[in-house]
Amino acid sequence: MKKLALINGANLDRLGKREPEIYGSTTLEDIVAAVRRQAESLGVALSDFQSNHEGAIIDEIARLADSGCEGVIINPGAFTHTSVALRDSIAGSGMKFVEVHISNIHAREAFRDNSLTAPVCAAQICGMGLEGYLAALRFLAK
Amino acid sequence: MKKLALINGANLDRLGKREPEIYGSTTLEDIVAAVRRQAESLGVALSDFQSNHEGAIIDEIARLADSGCEGVIINPGAFTHTSVALRDSIAGSGMKFVEVHISNIHAREAFRDNSLTAPVCAAQICGMGLEGYLAALRFLAK
Amino acid sequence: MKKLALINGANLDRLGKREPEIYGSTTLEDIVAAVRRQAESLGVALSDFQSNHEGAIIDEIARLADSGCEGVIINPGAFTHTSVALRDSIAGSGMKFVEVHISNIHAREAFRDNSLTAPVCAAQICGMGLEGYLAALRFLAK
Amino acid sequence: MKKLALINGANLDRLGKREPEIYGSTTLEDIVAAVRRQAESLGVALSDFQSNHEGAIIDEIARLADSGCEGVIINPGAFTHTSVALRDSIAGSGMKFVEVHISNIHAREAFRDNSLTAPVCAAQICGMGLEGYLAALRFLAK
Amino acid sequence: MKKLALINGANLDRLGKREPEIYGSTTLEDIVAAVRRQAESLGVALSDFQSNHEGAIIDEIARLADSGCEGVIINPGAFTHTSVALRDSIAGSGMKFVEVHISNIHAREAFRDNSLTAPVCAAQICGMGLEGYLAALRFLAK
Amino acid sequence: MKKLALINGANLDRLGKREPEIYGSTTLEDIVAAVRRQAESLGVALSDFQSNHEGAIIDEIARLADSGCEGVIINPGAFTHTSVALRDSIAGSGMKFVEVHISNIHAREAFRDNSLTAPVCAAQICGMGLEGYLAALRFLAK
Amino acid sequence: MKKLALINGANLDRLGKREPEIYGSTTLEDIVAAVRRQAESLGVALSDFQSNHEGAIIDEIARLADSGCEGVIINPGAFTHTSVALRDSIAGSGMKFVEVHISNIHAREAFRDNSLTAPVCAAQICGMGLEGYLAALRFLAK
Amino acid sequence: MKKLALINGANLDRLGKREPEIYGSTTLEDIVAAVRRQAESLGVALSDFQSNHEGAIIDEIARLADSGCEGVIINPGAFTHTSVALRDSIAGSGMKFVEVHISNIHAREAFRDNSLTAPVCAAQICGMGLEGYLAALRFLAK
Amino acid sequence: MKKLALINGANLDRLGKREPEIYGSTTLEDIVAAVRRQAESLGVALSDFQSNHEGAIIDEIARLADSGCEGVIINPGAFTHTSVALRDSIAGSGMKFVEVHISNIHAREAFRDNSLTAPVCAAQICGMGLEGYLAALRFLAK
Amino acid sequence: MKKLALINGANLDRLGKREPEIYGSTTLEDIVAAVRRQAESLGVALSDFQSNHEGAIIDEIARLADSGCEGVIINPGAFTHTSVALRDSIAGSGMKFVEVHISNIHAREAFRDNSLTAPVCAAQICGMGLEGYLAALRFLAK
Amino acid sequence: MKKLALINGANLDRLGKREPEIYGSTTLEDIVAAVRRQAESLGVALSDFQSNHEGAIIDEIARLADSGCEGVIINPGAFTHTSVALRDSIAGSGMKFVEVHISNIHAREAFRDNSLTAPVCAAQICGMGLEGYLAALRFLAK
Amino acid sequence: MKKLALINGANLDRLGKREPEIYGSTTLEDIVAAVRRQAESLGVALSDFQSNHEGAIIDEIARLADSGCEGVIINPGAFTHTSVALRDSIAGSGMKFVEVHISNIHAREAFRDNSLTAPVCAAQICGMGLEGYLAALRFLAK
Repeated sequence: MKKLALINGANLDRLGKREPEIYGSTTLEDIVAAVRRQAESLGVALSDFQSNHEGAIIDEIARLADSGCEGVIINPGAFTHTSVALRDSIAGSGMKFVEVHISNIHAREAFRDNSLTAPVCAAQICGMGLEGYLAALRFLAK
Repeated sequence: MKKLALINGANLDRLGKREPEIYGSTTLEDIVAAVRRQAESLGVALSDFQSNHEGAIIDEIARLADSGCEGVIINPGAFTHTSVALRDSIAGSGMKFVEVHISNIHAREAFRDNSLTAPVCAAQICGMGLEGYLAALRFLAK
Repeated sequence: MKKLALINGANLDRLGKREPEIYGSTTLEDIVAAVRRQAESLGVALSDFQSNHEGAIIDEIARLADSGCEGVIINPGAFTHTSVALRDSIAGSGMKFVEVHISNIHAREAFRDNSLTAPVCAAQICGMGLEGYLAALRFLAK
Repeated sequence: MKKLALINGANLDRLGKREPEIYGSTTLEDIVAAVRRQAESLGVALSDFQSNHEGAIIDEIARLADSGCEGVIINPGAFTHTSVALRDSIAGSGMKFVEVHISNIHAREAFRDNSLTAPVCAAQICGMGLEGYLAALRFLAK
Repeated sequence: MKKLALINGANLDRLGKREPEIYGSTTLEDIVAAVRRQAESLGVALSDFQSNHEGAIIDEIARLADSGCEGVIINPGAFTHTSVALRDSIAGSGMKFVEVHISNIHAREAFRDNSLTAPVCAAQICGMGLEGYLAALRFLAK
Repeated sequence: MKKLALINGANLDRLGKREPEIYGSTTLEDIVAAVRRQAESLGVALSDFQSNHEGAIIDEIARLADSGCEGVIINPGAFTHTSVALRDSIAGSGMKFVEVHISNIHAREAFRDNSLTAPVCAAQICGMGLEGYLAALRFLAK
Repeated sequence: MKKLALINGANLDRLGKREPEIYGSTTLEDIVAAVRRQAESLGVALSDFQSNHEGAIIDEIARLADSGCEGVIINPGAFTHTSVALRDSIAGSGMKFVEVHISNIHAREAFRDNSLTAPVCAAQICGMGLEGYLAALRFLAK
Repeated sequence: MKKLALINGANLDRLGKREPEIYGSTTLEDIVAAVRRQAESLGVALSDFQSNHEGAIIDEIARLADSGCEGVIINPGAFTHTSVALRDSIAGSGMKFVEVHISNIHAREAFRDNSLTAPVCAAQICGMGLEGYLAALRFLAK
Repeated sequence: MKKLALINGANLDRLGKREPEIYGSTTLEDIVAAVRRQAESLGVALSDFQSNHEGAIIDEIARLADSGCEGVIINPGAFTHTSVALRDSIAGSGMKFVEVHISNIHAREAFRDNSLTAPVCAAQICGMGLEGYLAALRFLAK
Repeated sequence: MKKLALINGANLDRLGKREPEIYGSTTLEDIVAAVRRQAESLGVALSDFQSNHEGAIIDEIARLADSGCEGVIINPGAFTHTSVALRDSIAGSGMKFVEVHISNIHAREAFRDNSLTAPVCAAQICGMGLEGYLAALRFLAK
Repeated sequence: MKKLALINGANLDRLGKREPEIYGSTTLEDIVAAVRRQAESLGVALSDFQSNHEGAIIDEIARLADSGCEGVIINPGAFTHTSVALRDSIAGSGMKFVEVHISNIHAREAFRDNSLTAPVCAAQICGMGLEGYLAALRFLAK
Repeated sequence: MKKLALINGANLDRLGKREPEIYGSTTLEDIVAAVRRQAESLGVALSDFQSNHEGAIIDEIARLADSGCEGVIINPGAFTHTSVALRDSIAGSGMKFVEVHISNIHAREAFRDNSLTAPVCAAQICGMGLEGYLAALRFLAK
C-alpha cells in the first residue's frame, strides 16, 4: 500500500476561525477528514500533521522520508514565502511534493506571490480550496 | 447543461513535438481528447480553442462570454508572462478561469515565475501535466 | 479636408460590457458616434478602427500613413503597457498621435502607470472618459 | 454659478522666459487670460493662483475647499514629482482636480514620468500646451 | 520649568475636515488643547506651531533650539517622507524629538512606510491618534 | 475585567545582558514587572509570555484569541522583520495589537526599518524603552 | 539542397519609409533580394516571410520546422524585447537561428538592450545593416 | 561690472551651530564675508541670499535672472537631493551655476550621494569648506 | 580548559542522506566525531548541538553564553539566509563565532550567496567540507 | 592600402586550452591566421594584438589611432563587461570598431549579457566563432 | 617644502585629441604645465604621473606614500567608476586626495554619476576644466 | 612533489602599512614566510606572486597552469569585487583555487559582500587573517 502524507503549516489550525472572507469556513478538521476519505477510496495510506513550528515540520519530513513515504501534500502556509530551511528539507527528502494553497496567492499581497518551496515541489495548486488538496492526492496516488 | 471551455495559447499546438524533456510526449490532441471525455462523464458541454495569436484568444474569450459559457480552463502558454491584454480580457469576461501549466513554471527561468493572468483567475495549477487540466475541469464543473 | 483617424486597441470592443465600475456604461459605438459627430462639425475626415490584434493595429497605422492621414487619436488599451512594436509603428509613421485612456491609469495597478507609447505621442489624456477623445480630436483638428 | 480654480506651481511664472524649446513662448499671463475668457463663455467663476511655494499652494487649496470651489485645474510644475504634501492636500480637499502639463512629461527625463499627484486627481492631460488647460476647464465645467 | 514644543506639519490644519475615515473627526484644535492640558498637569511649558510650509517649520525649529527648548513632539505630515531639509534641521537642533503619526503609516501606501525624519528622532509612535501625542509628551517630560 | 497580554519575541529574554549600548540595562523581568504594576492600577488582567520560538508565539496568540483576550502588546524582536507566519497569526486573531520596540528601529541597520507585522497591528511605538510598553498598555486598556 | 529561411518581424515592412536616420534608406525588398541572390550563389534554398503579427511568425516557424528547414535568419524587430512566445517558438523548433538587427540595439534606448530571443538563438549580429543578414546566411549555409 | 550671486539653502543659517563634527565651526556670516572680500578683490558685484524656503530661493533665482546677474554660487543644502523645482529654476534661468557643498557629500549617507541640481549646473565642488566657495567664485568671475 | 561549542542548524542531521552530489556522503556523526577528536588533541572542551528549530538554537546560544563558552563553530544551514533572530542572538552573546558551510554557497542559487549571520561572526569558511569545521576549531582554539 | 587591426582581450591567449565546451578547440593563433589570410585576399593591411592588461589595450588603441588605422575588430573578452576605460578609449579613438564574441554571450551568465563597449562600437557579433571575426573584417574592409 | 603630486588616469593622455566637444582642446601637457607653474608660485614640490594602467597608478600611489608626499590631485578618468582597487589604494595611503574631473560627470551618462573613489578623497571638483586642478592644488597646498 | 601557488592581489603589498585597524600589522612578507614554512612541513612546493596589476595576475595564472601547478591560494584583494577577467582566468585554468580574505568581507561595505571570483573557486575563507592562508594550504595540500 502506497504511503502518502498531508502536512499543513503555520496558522492552518485556525482555518475557519481566521479571516473567513479569504479562507472560507471550512476547518482543518474538515479538510483532513475529506482527504482521508478519498485516500481510503484510492487505496493509499495517509498520515497527517500540522504545526506552527517550522522546525517541527522539517523533523516530520525527515521522519516521513525514513518511513517509506513516497509523496506529500503540503500547504506550508506562510512558510511558503520565508523558509529556505523547509525548501532544503523538501529538496533533500527524496519524496514527491505537491504544494497546495487554499486561496489564490497570486491575487493577494505581493509578498505572497513568491514561493520558496514551489521550485522544489513537483507541482503547485492554489485557489481551489479543499478541491486543491483532493487534486493533489489524486496526482500523487498514481 | 453547463457550458465550459478549454483554451490553449502560444506554442501549445507543438506539444509533444517541442522540448519533450520539459513538456513530455503527450500532444495537444491527446489533452483535448482526455478533457473532452471527462467533460462528457461530468455532463458539461466543452468547447475547445487553440491559437498562437493573442488577439484571437481575446476574441474567443469575448465570444464565449456572449455565448453563456461559465468557466474556462486556460493554458496561456507564454502569454501568461507578457499579456496585459489577455489579463484584461479575462478580468472583464465575467467567467471563472483556472490557469493551467503543464510544467512547474516555478522551477524554470525566473521570468516564467511571474503570471500576469493568475491574479484575475480563480485558481492556478502547474506541474501536473494532463492531470492539471482534468483537476481544473472538475473544479469548474461543480 | 484634413484626414484624422481613431484607433481603439485591446478589449475596447467590450466597453460598457466589461467592468463598468472602472470604465462606465458607455459603449465603443457611443464613443465612435460622438467622435464622428464632432469631426463633422470641425470639418475633418475621420476613419475608425478597433482590434484586439496588435499586428492588425500596426498594419492599420501603416495603411493610414500611406493614405495621407495626419493625426491619430489612439487608445491602445493594454498594448499601452506592453507593445514596443506599436511604439515603433507610431514613431515611424510620421503622423501626430494623441494617446487617450478612459480611466485614470495612474490611479490603478502599478503596471498601468507606465506607457510605452506615450513618449512617442504628442500628448496623453486620461481619466476624462468620452471627453478625452473629444479633446484629442479638437487638438489634432487644429 | 459654479466655482472653479486654476493653480500653477513652481516656475510657471517664468513661462515664455524659460526654455522655450520645451515650453514654447506663451506666457502664464496668456494662459490665464485664455482660460478666463473660456470660463466666462462657459458661465463658470474662475479664481487663479500661482506660487513657487509648495506651502502656499496647499494653503490656497484649503482656502478654495472652504469657499465652495468645486473643481481645480492644476499644473503643479515640478511639485508633481516630489510633493506628497500636495497630494494629501488634493486628496483631502473634496474638490475634483485635473492635472495639466504643457509638455509631454513622458517624453522627457525619467524622473518626470512619475506623478505623485495624478493618482488623486480625476484626470491628467499632458503635451497639449494651452489646449490642455482649456480641455480641463471644459471637463470640470460640466 | 522644562520647555517642550508641539509641531504639526503639512495638512494637519485640515484634521477632522480631511478624509475622516483615515484620520477621524478630531481637529487639530482638539489635539493642541488636550496636549496643553496634559503639559500643564505635568508642569512643563509647551509652545505650539503648525505650518504647511517646510521652510517655516525649519525656521521654527531653529528658533526653538535658540530659546532653550529641550524636546519636540513633531507630526511632520507628508514631510516625513520627502524632506531631507527637515531631517537635517532636526538632527542639527540639539533637541530631542518624538515623531508622531495619527494613523498607522505602515498600513497605508508603500511610500508612507518610509520616514526620512524618524532616524534622527529619539522615538516614533504611529496609529494611536491623540494618544500618540500624549504618550510622546509623557516621554519627553521625564 | 478586560484581558490583555504581553508577548516578547526572539532574544528579549537576554535584555540587559545583550548589547546594552543599544537596549540599555533594563531586564525583561523589569519590564514585565512594570507593565504588570500599571495593568493592576488600570484594572486590567495581563498575561505574559516570551519565547525565542516563532511557532510558540503563534500557538500563544491562538490560545489568547480563544481565551477572550482583547488586546496584545507585542515586541516580536527580530521576527518583526522576517515572519509572515506571525503576521498572519496577528491578522487572523481578531485581537488588537500594538507593536513595541525598545530601540528606534529606524536608526539602525536598513533591514530593521521594515516591519512585516506593523501593517496588521493597530499601532507601533519604537525608541521609548520601557515607556513604549506602558504607553501601549494605556492605549489598549481604553 | 539545404533549406534556410528569412523572417522579418514588426515594422520591417516599413524599412526605408520609417526613421531613415536610424535604419537607412534600404527597403525590405532590397534586403530580401540581396539575401536571395547570395543564397543562390551559395546553393541553398531560401524562403522569406514578414509579418507585424507575432502569432503569424510563430505559425510560420512551426510550418518551417515541419518542412525540413534547417536554419533561420530572423530580425524579430520589436518582438525581440517583448515576446516570450516567440522565444519559446524558436527554442522548440529544432532549427538553428541567427538573430539580426540592422542598427546597433546597444546604442539606443535602454529597453532595446535586452533580447528575449537571443539566448535561444545560436548567434546575434547587430549594427551591420544588410551586411548582417548576409553574414548570418553565410554562417547558416555552412 | 560683472554681477554674481551667492545663494545658501536649507539650514545653512545654522552653520557653526549645527553638527560641527561634519560642517566645522565656521558660520555662514564668516563665509559670506570671505566670499564678499574676494569678490571685491576680483572686481565683481556680489549679492547674497539665504533661505530655508525652497520657494523663496526659486523666487530669488528668477529675480537675479531678470536683474542681469550672470553666475551663481549655490549651496542648496538638503534641497540638492529633493528639489526638482530648484533644478528647473536653475536650468531655466539662463545663468551659470556652480554647486558647492562644505562637506564631501559622497562620504556620507547614500541619499546625499545624488544631486538633482548638479546636472544643470556647470560645475560642482564638495568637501573643501569655505575654499569651495572661493574656488567657485574665481571660476565664475572669469 | 577553554570551552568551545559546535552548532549545526537546519537539515544538517540529514547530512549524507540528503543530496550527496552537493554535500558528499559524510554524516553529521562523522563530522562531530572528527571535530571532537581534534578538540581533544588541542586540549579544548567541546559541546555539540544540532536542531532544525531556529528557537532551539537561540536558546542553546544563550545557555552557552551563560556557561562560560568562549567560541562557537556554527553551520546555521538555511537559517544563514533567513534568520535575523539568530543574527541577533550571535551578536548579543559575547562569544566569538566562525560560520562554516560544507559546500561553496557562492557557487549555488543566488539566495544562498547572502548570509545574515556572517557580518556578526568573526570569520566565515565555505566549500571545504569537514576541513572547514577543523580549520574553524583551530582558529577558535588559539 | 586600408589599415585595420585585430585586438583580443583578457584570456583569449588561452583559447583552445580553456573551457573548450564553451569556446571550442580553435586557438588564438588559428583565428589570427585565418583573419590575416582573409585580410590579404581583401587587400587590407591588418595589425594584431592580444593582452590580458586593460591598460595595454588602451595604449594600443591610442597607438593605432595615431597610425592611421581606420577600423578595429575587437574581442575585449571579460573587459566587455567591466571596463569603462576601454569604452572611453574606443569612443575617443575616431576609429570604427566591431565587437566580436566567440560564444553567444546572451546565453550565458546574466552578467555577460551587458556590454559596456558595444554602445560605442558600430556593430556587435556574437556566437559565430571564427566566422564572427571574418564577418567583422568583411564589414570593416568595405 | 611640502610635497604634492598630480595623477591622471585612463585616456587622459589623449586629452585634446579625444571628444573635444566634451573635454575641450586643452592637452594633458597644457594642464601639467599650468599646475606646475602654480605649484612653483605656491612654493610646493609637485610630481606628475599619467597611466592607462590601474596597477601602475596603484604602484605610484604606494611610492608617493613612502616618499613623504602629503597630498594628491587625482583625475582617475574612467577608473573613478570601476576601480575598488584604486579606492583601497587611496584609503590606505595616508595622503589627502582631491578628485578632479574636467567635465561635469553628473551631466553625462548615468554610470558616470557614481564615483567609487570620491568617498575616500577629501574633496571632489568637477566641471571646471583646468581650473578644477588649480583649485585642488590651492586647497592641498594650505 | 605537489606544486601549489600563493597569489596576492591589489594593495596586499601594503599590508601592515595600510589601515591596520582593519587588516592588522602583519606584513605580506610575514604571511609569505609563514605559508612557505608550512608548505615545507607539508612537503609541497610553493611559488609566490603579488601584483597590483590585474593583467599580471592573469598572466601568472596562465603560467602556473602550464607549469603543472595543481592548486592556488588567492587573495585577489579588491579584484574580488570587480574582475570578471580574473574570474574567467581562474575558471579556465584547470587548477583548484581557495579564495582567502584577511578581514571578514561580510562585515564591511556592502560592495565588498559580493565576490565575482568565489563562484569559480573551490572554497572561500575570510576573517581569519594569516590563519586563513594556512587553512587554505592545508586543504589544497591534501
